[in-house]
Amino acid sequence: MDLPLSLDRTSSTTLQMQLCEQLRGAILDGRLAAGTRLTSTRALAESLTVSRNVVVAAYDELYAEGYIEGQRGSGTFVTRDLPPLPKRTRPEPSGVPRWLRTPAPPDLDVLEDDPNLIVFRIGRPNTALISAETWRRAWNDVANQLPPSYYGAPGGDGRLRQAIADYLGRSRGVACDAADVVVTSGALQAVDLVARATLRAGDPVAIEEPGYPSARRVFTARGAEIVPVPVDEDGLKVDELPEGNDAPLLVYTTPSHQYPLGARLSIRRRLALLSWAERCDALIVEDDYDSEYRYDSPPLPALAGLDQAGRVVYIGTFSKVLSPALRLGYVVAPPPLRERIVRLKRLSDYHTPWPVQRALATFIESGGLERHIRRARRHYAEKRRIVADAFRPVSEFATLRGLEAGIHVFLELHPTLDAQRVIERAHRAGVVVESITEHYLGTLPRNGLLLGYGGLTLDQAERGSAILAKAIREELGSAFANAPPRAYAHRPGVINDAPTV
Amino acid sequence: MDLPLSLDRTSSTTLQMQLCEQLRGAILDGRLAAGTRLTSTRALAESLTVSRNVVVAAYDELYAEGYIEGQRGSGTFVTRDLPPLPKRTRPEPSGVPRWLRTPAPPDLDVLEDDPNLIVFRIGRPNTALISAETWRRAWNDVANQLPPSYYGAPGGDGRLRQAIADYLGRSRGVACDAADVVVTSGALQAVDLVARATLRAGDPVAIEEPGYPSARRVFTARGAEIVPVPVDEDGLKVDELPEGNDAPLLVYTTPSHQYPLGARLSIRRRLALLSWAERCDALIVEDDYDSEYRYDSPPLPALAGLDQAGRVVYIGTFSKVLSPALRLGYVVAPPPLRERIVRLKRLSDYHTPWPVQRALATFIESGGLERHIRRARRHYAEKRRIVADAFRPVSEFATLRGLEAGIHVFLELHPTLDAQRVIERAHRAGVVVESITEHYLGTLPRNGLLLGYGGLTLDQAERGSAILAKAIREELGSAFANAPPRAYAHRPGVINDAPTV
Repeated sequence: MDLPLSLDRTSSTTLQMQLCEQLRGAILDGRLAAGTRLTSTRALAESLTVSRNVVVAAYDELYAEGYIEGQRGSGTFVTRDLPPLPKRTRPEPSGVPRWLRTPAPPDLDVLEDDPNLIVFRIGRPNTALISAETWRRAWNDVANQLPPSYYGAPGGDGRLRQAIADYLGRSRGVACDAADVVVTSGALQAVDLVARATLRAGDPVAIEEPGYPSARRVFTARGAEIVPVPVDEDGLKVDELPEGNDAPLLVYTTPSHQYPLGARLSIRRRLALLSWAERCDALIVEDDYDSEYRYDSPPLPALAGLDQAGRVVYIGTFSKVLSPALRLGYVVAPPPLRERIVRLKRLSDYHTPWPVQRALATFIESGGLERHIRRARRHYAEKRRIVADAFRPVSEFATLRGLEAGIHVFLELHPTLDAQRVIERAHRAGVVVESITEHYLGTLPRNGLLLGYGGLTLDQAERGSAILAKAIREELGSAFANAPPRAYAHRPGVINDAPTV
Repeated sequence: MDLPLSLDRTSSTTLQMQLCEQLRGAILDGRLAAGTRLTSTRALAESLTVSRNVVVAAYDELYAEGYIEGQRGSGTFVTRDLPPLPKRTRPEPSGVPRWLRTPAPPDLDVLEDDPNLIVFRIGRPNTALISAETWRRAWNDVANQLPPSYYGAPGGDGRLRQAIADYLGRSRGVACDAADVVVTSGALQAVDLVARATLRAGDPVAIEEPGYPSARRVFTARGAEIVPVPVDEDGLKVDELPEGNDAPLLVYTTPSHQYPLGARLSIRRRLALLSWAERCDALIVEDDYDSEYRYDSPPLPALAGLDQAGRVVYIGTFSKVLSPALRLGYVVAPPPLRERIVRLKRLSDYHTPWPVQRALATFIESGGLERHIRRARRHYAEKRRIVADAFRPVSEFATLRGLEAGIHVFLELHPTLDAQRVIERAHRAGVVVESITEHYLGTLPRNGLLLGYGGLTLDQAERGSAILAKAIREELGSAFANAPPRAYAHRPGVINDAPTV
């Protein structure tokens, strides 16, 4: 107990009564919680420079009133079973004060999953695949060493930066040095720092349509003018990027596994995008968020690996490969941009917490990361097969896209199927699945669901897919209960006439 | 090794030679670092869908050239003792691209301490005082549990928020609920989030003069117009805050131990400041950065504890009480501002890393934090006494201020002493000390040094203070070698005529 107490010797109220009132007030408004140990009468008298009798009398009174309990020698405590006290609330300003007249920041999704449901949520890995032993050992360094008394480098811990640089070289073909890597608190912070380093209000920024809503909102919050650019089965349609005076300053892209549709940016498009960026003096923001997971296909070089002109800023994250709760990402930028990013990082939060950086450096250096990726790749490949099998029976009306990579797929629905009704039907049967809708900035040219299978067990993936496929069949039945089924029998190939992914 | 490789079957170059060239290139530009294990010939042939002979022949060639080493059965590795390779460098854009035309962010200090010197650095705690056993146990939870597969709440981990709310109630007299606390990555991020939530470019923000340079730069980076307000021995001079149309939107203050001069804001000034804020529709940003350390004086209630009108946002940190490398702080704001801060936190980095939040919750819940504070208070009180004793012999020319609280003091120098020359003299004798200069926005009305003694051992504090006192004596001798010492003998009380702190 280190509560600020102040006694007024000039008051007509006795010191004992003043003390008693202040302590009672602190108990009643919750500053002294039930069970809190009170300072001893001797120590309190000393710190208030009053006679010990004053404190003893005040404590006796509170004891008699039932606010405190305890026995001589074993300490005095705020009574544990006080009746429920009114909720402590912070005071509210009246009206709208001057300092709340800026536009409110966007209210981004914060999702909490009901453990009783099977939740297909995009961007969730299966953390149960992490080796408990390797994880434990990675934290030994942190647990067995007292923390430094100084701040770390804003760009990140040297060991971790080196480990990331080596990893990017051998796994993504991005040649870089430890000094080229800036450690961030997740990929989202990397996007935020890039936006703050480069943009003025009104600057045009191209993003994929559909695209990653959080990234879009980061650019919007910076005042950028968003230029949506469509995607197809080869990823971003580079030839639809504006040229000349209309060319955006930045283009945000997810080439390994387009978020959310799942396409891979073809090598031809990659080269075209780099050439566009050089021609238009633009910067490519390459978000390689789940590049670790590919199936049946060789890796394509990262844009940052192909870049010869300093036109690509590369963003990676450990959210999908380990856990989003670690909040650990990184960015590799052309040197003059990197310098700005480091300064903004210093200005924003100085550096990413030392314990997390240190543990992750150990985890990567020990080979644990790449062992984990190999193990996880087999697991996700198996889950992906289970999901693909489950939807084969309804494939005329529901087509999976983006199966080649990543830990989620897009389930494109036949245009006549109402996605919202399928979602509701599945929810009643215990399965949560997201619509593609909020990933579009403009009107919705495609109809479908996003199935994030990363976080599910094999069994959940199997049961969840079966329930969802059943919901689709039922919805088809219900939709055509009053319509001639023949209308459909005539159009089995209609899905191929839909705009390609 | 997961390097992107691509073979062109239509090329006139053989597959074997293409593979060999690509691997050689990756070794030469560092993408494959010395000692990296190469994929087995069988696995690589499979992933490239070529005959195994092609890969074996390419490896044989690289082996003959000395790029790779290893023996059949034990794996193949990039040669460990390759001659030094040219440094991998990221490509640079030519000229100044369009996306680097915003003003560069400020370049804040990043200090690295030479371990061979005694460094009086402000804001450094002595982390050796932390109980190794309590620290280790706090990390057990993290080490023995795989991380979650989902994001946490943007406002912070529920257990940690509760632990902080309880702690603030009993130690700072701030009545609040877990939901009122937002966990941030250090106090600096809290200031940044408050600035982003409340300010438009051009809005006036009052800060203490001298004050905390990092906070000032956060407000400046947001485009605020800085209004410096002087401080004296009672802290911020509240009656010099502009009123009416000129009233600043925000006032940033450090009432427990004014940063950097060390004064405590008197209770009369606290009440006057709250009343000013209500009258002028302004927000008080209370940065309580080292309130845990007080000596010989009872605690004063935090502004947030006195606030009845929702006009105070309270910022705290574990940087001084545990370690700055944890990057853990918190903010308690009036409810409508809190909501904005949570949204901006979600937009900036989603939440503070789970492992650090979890470990700290355990640390506080176990009573470890308050045991540590009691132990540290005794240690700092002792160090403070050592420092005070060391400067007594030169007290006519060097006066310590801000001794009542915190882990640094201000050593005010006689106006005729050249602080820079004292700093240089001390540095030659192995002691690093900071000038007050950079803490002033305007001209320098006071002359002196900042002695952060928190991070030093008792012995370092004693030796460092003695060296610095000697440097002052020598500088006095040198300064008056050519001047009549009598000039000084006549002005022993001059320090009292200097502007009060």
